[in-house]
Amino acid sequence: MKFQPFFIALFTASLLFAQEHTHQSSRALEFPDIPGYVTLKTDLHQHTVFSDGNVWPNIRVMEALRDNLDVISLTEHIEYQPHKEDIPHPDRNRSYEIALQEAKDHDLLLVHGSEITRQAPIGHNNAIFIKDANQLLVNDAEDSFAEAKKQGAFVFWNHPAWYAQSPKGNPVLSDFQKERISSGELHGIEVINTGDYSEESLALALENNLTIMGTSDIHGLIDWDYVEKGHTRPITLVFAKERSKESLKEALFAGRTVAVFNSLLVGKEENLVPLLNASVQFEKAKYINNTSILEVTLKNVTSSDLIFENQMSYTFYSSSPVFTIPAEGTKTLQIKTLEKKDDLQIKLKALGAYIAPKEHPVITWNIALKDQE
Amino acid sequence: MKFQPFFIALFTASLLFAQEHTHQSSRALEFPDIPGYVTLKTDLHQHTVFSDGNVWPNIRVMEALRDNLDVISLTEHIEYQPHKEDIPHPDRNRSYEIALQEAKDHDLLLVHGSEITRQAPIGHNNAIFIKDANQLLVNDAEDSFAEAKKQGAFVFWNHPAWYAQSPKGNPVLSDFQKERISSGELHGIEVINTGDYSEESLALALENNLTIMGTSDIHGLIDWDYVEKGHTRPITLVFAKERSKESLKEALFAGRTVAVFNSLLVGKEENLVPLLNASVQFEKAKYINNTSILEVTLKNVTSSDLIFENQMSYTFYSSSPVFTIPAEGTKTLQIKTLEKKDDLQIKLKALGAYIAPKEHPVITWNIALKDQE
Amino acid sequence: MKFQPFFIALFTASLLFAQEHTHQSSRALEFPDIPGYVTLKTDLHQHTVFSDGNVWPNIRVMEALRDNLDVISLTEHIEYQPHKEDIPHPDRNRSYEIALQEAKDHDLLLVHGSEITRQAPIGHNNAIFIKDANQLLVNDAEDSFAEAKKQGAFVFWNHPAWYAQSPKGNPVLSDFQKERISSGELHGIEVINTGDYSEESLALALENNLTIMGTSDIHGLIDWDYVEKGHTRPITLVFAKERSKESLKEALFAGRTVAVFNSLLVGKEENLVPLLNASVQFEKAKYINNTSILEVTLKNVTSSDLIFENQMSYTFYSSSPVFTIPAEGTKTLQIKTLEKKDDLQIKLKALGAYIAPKEHPVITWNIALKDQE
Amino acid sequence: MKFQPFFIALFTASLLFAQEHTHQSSRALEFPDIPGYVTLKTDLHQHTVFSDGNVWPNIRVMEALRDNLDVISLTEHIEYQPHKEDIPHPDRNRSYEIALQEAKDHDLLLVHGSEITRQAPIGHNNAIFIKDANQLLVNDAEDSFAEAKKQGAFVFWNHPAWYAQSPKGNPVLSDFQKERISSGELHGIEVINTGDYSEESLALALENNLTIMGTSDIHGLIDWDYVEKGHTRPITLVFAKERSKESLKEALFAGRTVAVFNSLLVGKEENLVPLLNASVQFEKAKYINNTSILEVTLKNVTSSDLIFENQMSYTFYSSSPVFTIPAEGTKTLQIKTLEKKDDLQIKLKALGAYIAPKEHPVITWNIALKDQE
Repeated sequence: MKFQPFFIALFTASLLFAQEHTHQSSRALEFPDIPGYVTLKTDLHQHTVFSDGNVWPNIRVMEALRDNLDVISLTEHIEYQPHKEDIPHPDRNRSYEIALQEAKDHDLLLVHGSEITRQAPIGHNNAIFIKDANQLLVNDAEDSFAEAKKQGAFVFWNHPAWYAQSPKGNPVLSDFQKERISSGELHGIEVINTGDYSEESLALALENNLTIMGTSDIHGLIDWDYVEKGHTRPITLVFAKERSKESLKEALFAGRTVAVFNSLLVGKEENLVPLLNASVQFEKAKYINNTSILEVTLKNVTSSDLIFENQMSYTFYSSSPVFTIPAEGTKTLQIKTLEKKDDLQIKLKALGAYIAPKEHPVITWNIALKDQE
Repeated sequence: MKFQPFFIALFTASLLFAQEHTHQSSRALEFPDIPGYVTLKTDLHQHTVFSDGNVWPNIRVMEALRDNLDVISLTEHIEYQPHKEDIPHPDRNRSYEIALQEAKDHDLLLVHGSEITRQAPIGHNNAIFIKDANQLLVNDAEDSFAEAKKQGAFVFWNHPAWYAQSPKGNPVLSDFQKERISSGELHGIEVINTGDYSEESLALALENNLTIMGTSDIHGLIDWDYVEKGHTRPITLVFAKERSKESLKEALFAGRTVAVFNSLLVGKEENLVPLLNASVQFEKAKYINNTSILEVTLKNVTSSDLIFENQMSYTFYSSSPVFTIPAEGTKTLQIKTLEKKDDLQIKLKALGAYIAPKEHPVITWNIALKDQE
Repeated sequence: MKFQPFFIALFTASLLFAQEHTHQSSRALEFPDIPGYVTLKTDLHQHTVFSDGNVWPNIRVMEALRDNLDVISLTEHIEYQPHKEDIPHPDRNRSYEIALQEAKDHDLLLVHGSEITRQAPIGHNNAIFIKDANQLLVNDAEDSFAEAKKQGAFVFWNHPAWYAQSPKGNPVLSDFQKERISSGELHGIEVINTGDYSEESLALALENNLTIMGTSDIHGLIDWDYVEKGHTRPITLVFAKERSKESLKEALFAGRTVAVFNSLLVGKEENLVPLLNASVQFEKAKYINNTSILEVTLKNVTSSDLIFENQMSYTFYSSSPVFTIPAEGTKTLQIKTLEKKDDLQIKLKALGAYIAPKEHPVITWNIALKDQE
Repeated sequence: MKFQPFFIALFTASLLFAQEHTHQSSRALEFPDIPGYVTLKTDLHQHTVFSDGNVWPNIRVMEALRDNLDVISLTEHIEYQPHKEDIPHPDRNRSYEIALQEAKDHDLLLVHGSEITRQAPIGHNNAIFIKDANQLLVNDAEDSFAEAKKQGAFVFWNHPAWYAQSPKGNPVLSDFQKERISSGELHGIEVINTGDYSEESLALALENNLTIMGTSDIHGLIDWDYVEKGHTRPITLVFAKERSKESLKEALFAGRTVAVFNSLLVGKEENLVPLLNASVQFEKAKYINNTSILEVTLKNVTSSDLIFENQMSYTFYSSSPVFTIPAEGTKTLQIKTLEKKDDLQIKLKALGAYIAPKEHPVITWNIALKDQE
């Protein structure tokens, strides 16, 4: 019995009435490049039916395209295979290979990865940029990490504060992690996983110079877990020399990342400050009539609401000192500069951003006013 | 290597932040019972990774619960298995069995089904209420239909007007269908599939006394193909003696159905008229002051917008004769009855409903006014 | 005591924070020109504090600009002056003069008008294009109409079906109206007033060749009475030779109007048919692949939802025969033309439009297909 | 010529179609009472056609009812009468009297007030709780203030930072204000006017023990200046012993107020802290499973979004330390208390609130946990 290519048309039927006025609210993630680097939007921790997820790998590609991501990795639990009865395939690279088929016609980078899964204190760890997932499927976690290193993988500790493995939610490094770090086998740590931002994980990242990661850890649908709740999926922004897998890998090892979830941005100061600097553009600066009140429009070029607090000595006309520039929107400030000035240093604390536990960065922008009146 | 039950907790993490104010717009489908019958909301044509769909069967159960369906059937192509390399399981009942696990804790009926798939003129056909899908996997379509009959199945012809199999979109019965009907092996026909309502299929249903069906034929995600476009998934309303699989089957064989897609309702007159009658409730009828203008509120108890045109000799105050009662909303009419009356026959043509190609039903309601002023 | 021009700045303060992301939903009314005429959007029945309205005349000008009207008239009751104690000015032209000050910097035509107000059967009547409202303030209604004629006014009967003056809501012409018509003193009739469309008034308009009018009759705020309820204000579209008061007047006397309220359009056939013809544009017509199914996008260039029913022998793929093209939106149809054609006559009944009581116009468009595949 | 009461029905026509599904977004302002006081929502600075506003006084009453205010005052400029030609009435109490007619059937308190208007440095000042506005209309501002005091008025300085009178936006007290304060003739100061929050005015309020005020200073329509821009009108919350004009007056003289504009709340510490304490309710506190992670829902019972930053040593699971509880919405926190506790002191900094320039209050709530698990 042979089935002809008329099956190929099966999917197109459902697209026929797709052209009308759609009700889809925009969910495209947007972040600017920073000086010297392109900003890659990545979600490097995801699951499909090939471990304990609920969708075929092609759906993960489609979700990523809708979210305007640059890079994804499908990180199946290689040891935990609840669908084994129906998907007995011994090759742990299948999820990656199938996703590759879907991604090949799109502008999306796919990084080969796997999740190495143990109980606490080893916990869950993602190895990405691997060559063969099957080689990681060994009894001792130590051997698995060693093999990942051999393949050149970048490895990060997943959700250290996950309450199922850390009932107090305050993770510390065990000997296992200390050894992996010192032997160059553990390079990053999730500071945001699902919806959880862990200040303790951030402290561990800073103390041990681990790369700061944010991931969705999606098992079901991005739409159900994030979009319909008004959330954007957690991601890691990676500042790479160019848009390629090689550059991405270099940037991850170099620690050039910011984790993002909705309006929360977490990163090392040297990464987060240039990102916020590039995230706000100043437009239409001019003094109001015969006053020394400067009107200037701040444009937020990201898909995150940005919350600021005035740190200048100058006060505002017509705005609270604490204000939000909505995602891809604008906020017009009237700043009482007391005299007409030729240039001005705008200074704002970013209340939605953290460079260390409980520590917000203060961002400054110098704007020229001479020709703008 | 053994993995402990701490994996069970994996999914709960993603639920942690789920309790907040969600942005999910209501998508629950609602239709009233009609005299003598309960109204079952069904989608009896769906696919998963076990044929050419993109999700694990549990997602179909979750979608159905969100849509407030009473019954679903997963109707995998038994012959067309594009994921065979990864899902080689020879048992064509697996999709049903896995969905059963997910559905067992919920108030959702699951009907065992399969799609028998051939080129035109045989086309695609769903057999539901089967016992063993494997027995249907035979070379000759005739044998497959005979086996379905042997198992007691209800069988319907899928998307006869699908342009891949009917390039002019005007299907006719082939000898194959004529024989199946006369031998009691074909009982229904899809009049709505995906977003397509086919007047030609409706004509075939009426001429051959086939049961009128509407289905989503979903392969991807209900959210992407319907919800985010502002559509509700196509369904078949079945008027059953009680809420059980047995009653559902009896009702399908008896032809007591209405196919629904958004504000479009298609059914035989004897089914559609009582449905529309029950779909509108009349409230707060009273005459305005010293006038003979009757004010009455029409409440639409369905999840479909209902479009009507006045068929009474009496005209309206403050409304066009063509008006919509929004889904689960109200519309207040002021009817100029010329004198104060004790009762009134409201008579409206349902412009979104069809009892035959190009033929709208006219619905009447008798309302008592005596005690209401 | 003298107050300096610093008061002028008073209003600007409230505009300071106006530049931000506003939440204002679009309310601009849009309708296309028709062959040979420009389409003027008018609301020729309005009130201010100078009779029984609640706002200063400048608000009426601002409302009109927000609604994108071309012409308004403030038609104060010259006899009914409930604010007389505070506004004792004997000159009935003040409302017009004050509005003129506000309108002079904007692209809005202001027509001088007044309402001549009596009990039934004379009722309420608007005289517009008057020169001096004071001359109309005389005891006998007959004299008032005669004076209006002397001034060259266009006069229309307001809300004949208003239940306060017509408790059954079924107005007929009294001797007064018959005499006014025969003596050339009554030229139009409101078929839509506030939210009320009166089929009886439409019949009177057609039987007596009166110009069909639709007006808001606003006393309070357009925002409260219409916008926040999801309505657009009732207007009269006037098809004038050019955009001037003279041309408007000529067109009103010639009866070239369509009354509009939301998706309801009422007019004489010779006016309504060309309007609907111009209201829908056909785009991107092409046959789907190897089928004889023509896909074509209908663009609604008006601010009213347009509801149609298919009147062709050809049926649709993927759409109910009854469908809505949303205001300033599109609807894509797939038409089963049975063979590939070089041109096609599209034929649709406009269910939201009336050319006579209970009579919808059928609109045809000829589209060329030869070069478009 | 006499016009009969059939005119009374004129307004009801426009209400006929009002009962349908309205699109009005909720704009009712809500704030809780605080221990010992009822919280009165007031807007004590407004204009109508009786000075330089654009609406009849009844509109101001209707706006207040829509906004759920408890108290308003119409504070016409007694000296500045741009509509004098049409409204020559010499009695400056007319605006109040007319509004009283509209308010008398509603649960809205109306306070008699007037604006005393001069150039800088005297500026604009509102006297409320006056008896006769005419007596304030005298040449010397000093005499006007003396008369206001004689009538028992509460007087506040309007928009000191208004750039038309303070081009640098940094007001200081002139000798005039110093004398008025020392002679008990000036009691309050606007810290929020229209959309402008002035930190300088707040400093003046605190240094001179003036009552903190927030007002809309509306001239046009609340809908256009605030609602359609997504703003709520600025108001003053007054904490009164009971809901009466006498209690309101006592509270204003005693300085028990908080000024509110959108999510900005400004007040003296002794007023703002109890308000914020009452504004958040804690619900459903319980520990998650076998963890020491406390889940608790914070309910915001106000119509302002409330922005907080965690000030506890305990960190959060699944939330940024900076978070918003949406107006009349909830936010669920998971607090890592490290051990299961019987009670907990929640401690949050209110980032949208100011008790002094640049100084946020820190709010604490003690919640019992013993019985709640």
